[in-house]
Amino acid sequence: MAAIRNLPVDGQRLWDDLMRLAEITDPDMPYTRRSFSPRFLEGRSWLAKRFQDAGLKVSIDPAGNLIGRLTGSDANAKTIVIGSHSDTVPSGGRFDGAAGVIAALEIVRAMRESGFKPAHSIEVIDFLAEEPSEYGLSCVGSRGLSGKLSDEMKSYNNAGGERLDQAIARVGGNAAVLDGPMRDDIAAFFELHIEQGIVLEQSGMDIGIVSGIAGITRLEIVFSGSADHAGTTPMHLRRDASVAAAEVISAIAREARRIAARGEGHFVATTGVIEVSPNAANVVPREVRMIVDARSENRQTMEAFVRFVDASTLQIAQEARVERTRFVRLSDTMPVACDERLRALLNESAQTLGFATMPLASGAGHDAAFMAQLAPAAMVFIPCKDGKSHTPEEWAEPEAIAAGAAVILAAVQRFDADGRS
Amino acid sequence: MAAIRNLPVDGQRLWDDLMRLAEITDPDMPYTRRSFSPRFLEGRSWLAKRFQDAGLKVSIDPAGNLIGRLTGSDANAKTIVIGSHSDTVPSGGRFDGAAGVIAALEIVRAMRESGFKPAHSIEVIDFLAEEPSEYGLSCVGSRGLSGKLSDEMKSYNNAGGERLDQAIARVGGNAAVLDGPMRDDIAAFFELHIEQGIVLEQSGMDIGIVSGIAGITRLEIVFSGSADHAGTTPMHLRRDASVAAAEVISAIAREARRIAARGEGHFVATTGVIEVSPNAANVVPREVRMIVDARSENRQTMEAFVRFVDASTLQIAQEARVERTRFVRLSDTMPVACDERLRALLNESAQTLGFATMPLASGAGHDAAFMAQLAPAAMVFIPCKDGKSHTPEEWAEPEAIAAGAAVILAAVQRFDADGRS
Repeated sequence: MAAIRNLPVDGQRLWDDLMRLAEITDPDMPYTRRSFSPRFLEGRSWLAKRFQDAGLKVSIDPAGNLIGRLTGSDANAKTIVIGSHSDTVPSGGRFDGAAGVIAALEIVRAMRESGFKPAHSIEVIDFLAEEPSEYGLSCVGSRGLSGKLSDEMKSYNNAGGERLDQAIARVGGNAAVLDGPMRDDIAAFFELHIEQGIVLEQSGMDIGIVSGIAGITRLEIVFSGSADHAGTTPMHLRRDASVAAAEVISAIAREARRIAARGEGHFVATTGVIEVSPNAANVVPREVRMIVDARSENRQTMEAFVRFVDASTLQIAQEARVERTRFVRLSDTMPVACDERLRALLNESAQTLGFATMPLASGAGHDAAFMAQLAPAAMVFIPCKDGKSHTPEEWAEPEAIAAGAAVILAAVQRFDADGRS
Repeated sequence: MAAIRNLPVDGQRLWDDLMRLAEITDPDMPYTRRSFSPRFLEGRSWLAKRFQDAGLKVSIDPAGNLIGRLTGSDANAKTIVIGSHSDTVPSGGRFDGAAGVIAALEIVRAMRESGFKPAHSIEVIDFLAEEPSEYGLSCVGSRGLSGKLSDEMKSYNNAGGERLDQAIARVGGNAAVLDGPMRDDIAAFFELHIEQGIVLEQSGMDIGIVSGIAGITRLEIVFSGSADHAGTTPMHLRRDASVAAAEVISAIAREARRIAARGEGHFVATTGVIEVSPNAANVVPREVRMIVDARSENRQTMEAFVRFVDASTLQIAQEARVERTRFVRLSDTMPVACDERLRALLNESAQTLGFATMPLASGAGHDAAFMAQLAPAAMVFIPCKDGKSHTPEEWAEPEAIAAGAAVILAAVQRFDADGRS
């Protein structure tokens, strides 16, 4: 790992800002700065001030994204956007999202201090509500910007009855105008993010060059049997929904391991939600509801997996004498490949700086997946301790964050130079 | 099925009383008369009045059981007890327990009206709190009477902080004196109960002569893995507690089917409680807690099953790379065989009355299991619709209840005559 002091970014200043932002948290539940909350707006005020201090022009776009803009020297050149998100999950960490926002800020500061004057305008964006919000939706800001925030989504309510479009207005946006792609002036998008996994750490790599962002398909499956007396109902007369559910959980894990072992890109599947009714020791389970979360870089692989789950749940239900009363896709996003040219620029930049890199798929969703619909997009992953995220224990080393920022800075400079040539 | 009018009991009066008792319910949640509640005490007041009207001497014993006693002609003869329980689960049925109490009352009424004067004294008992109560214990009254209510149990609290011994005092008992078997004067115990299963209905039988009451062993099993990100954690690096749980649920169902198919008596096992943490779609399950309820007429079979679950959960945990952090017997009751002589008397009585009978194990627990520790005990099962119990839909035909009462009446008369000879 290169020392923090020898990089073209000020790693210490980056770290100090990140820790200062982390202090803006619900004090009883660190680290919590949920989108749309007063604490979130407090964080954004602080960020806006830091953007201004760095010489950026601050605005909020109709999707509620906070933007700091540095105007480029070439009025005909498009804009290079660097960003991530400052909101957190409840009891989240200090790095997921925030590291990418502060790194973007530091990249622009480092550029200005080194006297580098980009031809392209550069924007730092703090995307609104990347984490699942109280309105039941994630990536609100990048979704809105790319024209993927539907009227139905705009009308989602939180528990207090506020509509999402009202909440967007409350943070300075205007959801009514979000009815298609909002930007055609973006030349490239870069995002730094912690890996949220253990691959870089276990491989001893400094930098992950993200190959693509997996599509996420969530299936809801319900088996319905009969809530018979657990003491009196003979085994052969039971219609036990948990027996069917157990077979499905096993089959899904086996199939996912089989697909992953083929080595044809990232594939995972998880039965994370399992709800049993009536869930009493002396009653045969009447109903089990499950949510299966599957992620793949490859759409064909995903479709084949969904067909496998469809067929096997039907067969298992029949064998267990229960009904499969529900089988639906709760959500279904397409995989997104990161831009090849930007990936090459990032990789060259990292190697020039002396960092060990590896290509890596993102199993988690990111704003970059929506930004890829507007412009070439790429991501840099940095290692995080034990792969943990969405928890106060989440940790990335100051040197790792500085390294990621330095790589993006170098790639932006190369891109800017290419664009001019 | 013999017609209701041709029996030596008044089936219509029995039914009318049963329906009148059912009306004493929480009106918003029929049929609810939970032990120790004001509604329960209202039911008992009504019962006590009916006992008195039938010429019985009413008392409450130290275990809180309501007793109606008819003194026999032979001062040296012991007492024949007939009874069940009048309490219900929340939203329970009108028959589970109550049918046995009202049938016992009707048996004594029929005896007196027919001019039959027993040598033995006869007692009708409404046992206290047979269903799991707010104090976390079932069969409180029969347990107390047989000397099985420990000091620890007496100190169990309900959610309001009242101790069980205080609650027993509140209904007229005195838990302090319950420190061993309370009765040595009982010659025989009979209980009528709905089957709570579908065996009689599916076999077209009128009467089940209960061979024994299964022992119930409840195992709590916890698997602990790692709550990793469901998108980023490769399949081969996961420690998914739900995968281990699924294998165990399948293995338990397979083994229980295998044991039951041997035809060496009633055996069932159920994984009725399955709790997943954190139970979120995008997080690999960190922990799964399960409760397995197994019931067997044969203690050796139960011990072998527990050894099977112990060994297989350890092996499955290892294969799934999780820890088995808990494996305990939450409860463990011995199987109880019903008295052979009483079973023979019941069977002869039923056949003389023209009823089709079959021997049948009870998979559910009953007061008879505790009474068997004081005296020879036996049970009569009557069919219930679709095997349903513990639900407002619970149903037994008036003719079926009358038939069961008539069988016990005839058996009591035979027993009384045998005892005199």
